[in-house]
Amino acid sequence: MEVVQVLCMKGGNGDTSYAKNSLVQKKVISLTKPIIEEAITNLYCKNFPASLCIADLGCSSGPNTLFAVLEVVSTVDKVRKKMGRQLPEIQVFLNDLPGNDFNTIFKSLPKFHKDLGKTMGAGAESCFVTGVPGSFYGRLVPSKSLHFVHSSYSLQWLSQVPRGLESNKGNIYMASSSPPSVLKAYYDQFQSDFSMFLRCRSEELLGGGTMVLTFLGRRSEDPSSKECCYIWELLAVALNDMVSEVEKEGSFTINRLEVSEVNWNAYHGEFCPSDAHKDGGYNAAKLMRAVAEPLLVSHFGDGIIEEVFSRYKKIVTDRMSREKTEFVNVTVSMTKRG
Amino acid sequence: MEVVQVLCMKGGNGDTSYAKNSLVQKKVISLTKPIIEEAITNLYCKNFPASLCIADLGCSSGPNTLFAVLEVVSTVDKVRKKMGRQLPEIQVFLNDLPGNDFNTIFKSLPKFHKDLGKTMGAGAESCFVTGVPGSFYGRLVPSKSLHFVHSSYSLQWLSQVPRGLESNKGNIYMASSSPPSVLKAYYDQFQSDFSMFLRCRSEELLGGGTMVLTFLGRRSEDPSSKECCYIWELLAVALNDMVSEVEKEGSFTINRLEVSEVNWNAYHGEFCPSDAHKDGGYNAAKLMRAVAEPLLVSHFGDGIIEEVFSRYKKIVTDRMSREKTEFVNVTVSMTKRG
Repeated sequence: MEVVQVLCMKGGNGDTSYAKNSLVQKKVISLTKPIIEEAITNLYCKNFPASLCIADLGCSSGPNTLFAVLEVVSTVDKVRKKMGRQLPEIQVFLNDLPGNDFNTIFKSLPKFHKDLGKTMGAGAESCFVTGVPGSFYGRLVPSKSLHFVHSSYSLQWLSQVPRGLESNKGNIYMASSSPPSVLKAYYDQFQSDFSMFLRCRSEELLGGGTMVLTFLGRRSEDPSSKECCYIWELLAVALNDMVSEVEKEGSFTINRLEVSEVNWNAYHGEFCPSDAHKDGGYNAAKLMRAVAEPLLVSHFGDGIIEEVFSRYKKIVTDRMSREKTEFVNVTVSMTKRG
Repeated sequence: MEVVQVLCMKGGNGDTSYAKNSLVQKKVISLTKPIIEEAITNLYCKNFPASLCIADLGCSSGPNTLFAVLEVVSTVDKVRKKMGRQLPEIQVFLNDLPGNDFNTIFKSLPKFHKDLGKTMGAGAESCFVTGVPGSFYGRLVPSKSLHFVHSSYSLQWLSQVPRGLESNKGNIYMASSSPPSVLKAYYDQFQSDFSMFLRCRSEELLGGGTMVLTFLGRRSEDPSSKECCYIWELLAVALNDMVSEVEKEGSFTINRLEVSEVNWNAYHGEFCPSDAHKDGGYNAAKLMRAVAEPLLVSHFGDGIIEEVFSRYKKIVTDRMSREKTEFVNVTVSMTKRG
C-alpha cells in the first residue's frame, strides 16, 4: 500500500477525530502568525494584485483547516483597508491527500463565509475556496498560478517508507537504538522529497511568490538527542539541512527562519474544559491517536487500537512527569526569485 | 432548511446510490458529445492557450462526474496532436453543493489519472482536478478565470422553493391539476435563477469562453402536456423561454440549441446485467430514488422511503406499459461575447 493511499488524519467529528484533537497544531499556527502576516503583507503590497491565489498544503480536516486561511484573508483585508484599496478576489486552494475528509471541510464553508462576512463586511463572497486532492510531492495546480503557499505540520510526512529499514529492529521510526544506515535512509528520503517539493512549488509560484512552511524539527543534528520528537520518534529536520536544501534548489531566497516550541499537552497553561483534559498524558496520547490511527489501522487492522493507545498513554504520562516534553517547530519564510 | 443545505444525490457506492443509478444521466452526456466536441475544438483552436480552465457545474459524485471531464480533455488532446502542439495545462473545477460526496470523487482520482495516462501518454499529469463546493446560483471562481463551462441535468434544480405554492394541493411539483398561479411561481423562480446563473458565469468566463448546458426540457409551453417530466413533474423549460432568457442577459451568443430524448429506463435497448435490470419500472424508480432520496429524507425522515419507492415503482411500471416514457433534453452551446 502506498503512503498516498493510506495516510490521513482521523476523519469525522468524533471524540478521537483529528477535528477534536488538533489544539496543538492550532497553537503552532498561532505561534507563526507574525511570520505569516509579514509575508502576506510584503507580498500584497508589492503590486496590489486584483486577484490573489493562495494554497494551504496538508490542510487536513478540522477547525485548523480554515484557521490559517482566515489569518491570510484577514491580513489582506486589514492591509487593503489601510491602503484604501478594493479587496482583491482571493482564490484558496486547500490541499491534502485524496483520503482526507474534504466533505467535512466543504460542509463547514457556508458558516466560514458567514463568519468572514461578519468581520470583513461585503467582500467575503469574493473569497473562493476549492479543494485540491493529491500529494504535494507532485504538481497540484497549473504553472505560475500561486501567490502564496502555507503549510504547517505536514512536511515531516515522507512520500514513502524509505528503503533499507530492515535493520531497524523494534522501532517504527528513527530512534536512539537505530543503526546509522537507518538514519541515513530517512535522511535521504527527506532530502529527495523536500527537493521535489521545492521543485514543484517553484513551478507553481509566480515570481516574487512566497511560502511559509512550518515543520517539526530539532536543533541538534544528533538523532539520538532526546530533543524533539521521541513522542513518536518523528522525522526531524536539522536547521542546517533545511537551509542548504533550499539554497541547493536555487529558486528561493530565505526571508526568515525561526524556531518555536509547543508542549505535548495541548492544555499546558490553558483553561481545561474538564478533569480529563487536565491529564497531560491523556491529551498527548489523544493527539497522537488522531494523527496515527488511520495509518496503524491500515497496517494492523483496528483490533489493536484501543489497547495500543491505552498502553501508549501510560508511557507518555510517565515521560511527561520526568522530562520537559515539547515539540520543536521550525518555520521558514521564503520567496521565489525574480 | 435551505435547498443548498439539503439537496444532493444519494452518496456512497451502495445499491441505491446515485453512483450506481446514473446510467440515464451518462447516456445524456454521450448524446451531447458532438456538441461538447465542437465547442471545445472551436474554443481551443481560437488561440491555443497554454493553460485551459474548465468547470463542470453540478458534477455530483459517481462515474459520470469525470466522464464529461474525460470527454473535454481527450478532445483537447486529439486536436493539439493533430495541430502538432504541446498539451496545455488543464485546470478542472468540479462543482456541486457542499453536501455532495466529494470524498468519493477525490478517492477515484488516482485511477482517473492512471487511465488518462494510458490513453494520452505523458501529459496526463498536467490535468489538475479541484473541487468547488457551492451553489452555481452564486459566484464560484474568480473573475475571467474560465474558458469552458459544462453542466448536464443540473439546471432544472431551483435555488429555492418558489413562493405561492399553497394552492398546489396534492402535488409536489407542477402537475396537470396545478392552478395557473403555481405554474407562474415556478416559472418566475426559474427565470430569476437562470438569469442569476448567466450573470455569474458571464463574470467568470473569459471573453470568447463557451458554455454547453443540458437540462430537462419540453417542446411544448403547456405544462399540462404529458410530454416531458411527469415522471416527477419535474421543472420543465420551454425552448423559447430559454433563448429569450439568454438574449435578455446579453453577454452570450447562442451557437447551437438541440433537443434529444432518452428513455426513463436506462437499459432500454441495452444489455441487461441481470433479470432485475430487465424491469423498466424498477430501473426508473431506482433512478429517481438515487436523485430524490436525500431531499425526501430531510423533509419526512427516512421511515417512509422504502414504502414510497415501492409504491412509486408500481405506478411508474403501469405508466411505462401504456405510454412512451422519455425525458426530453435541451442542450444549448453559447459563447461569451468578445
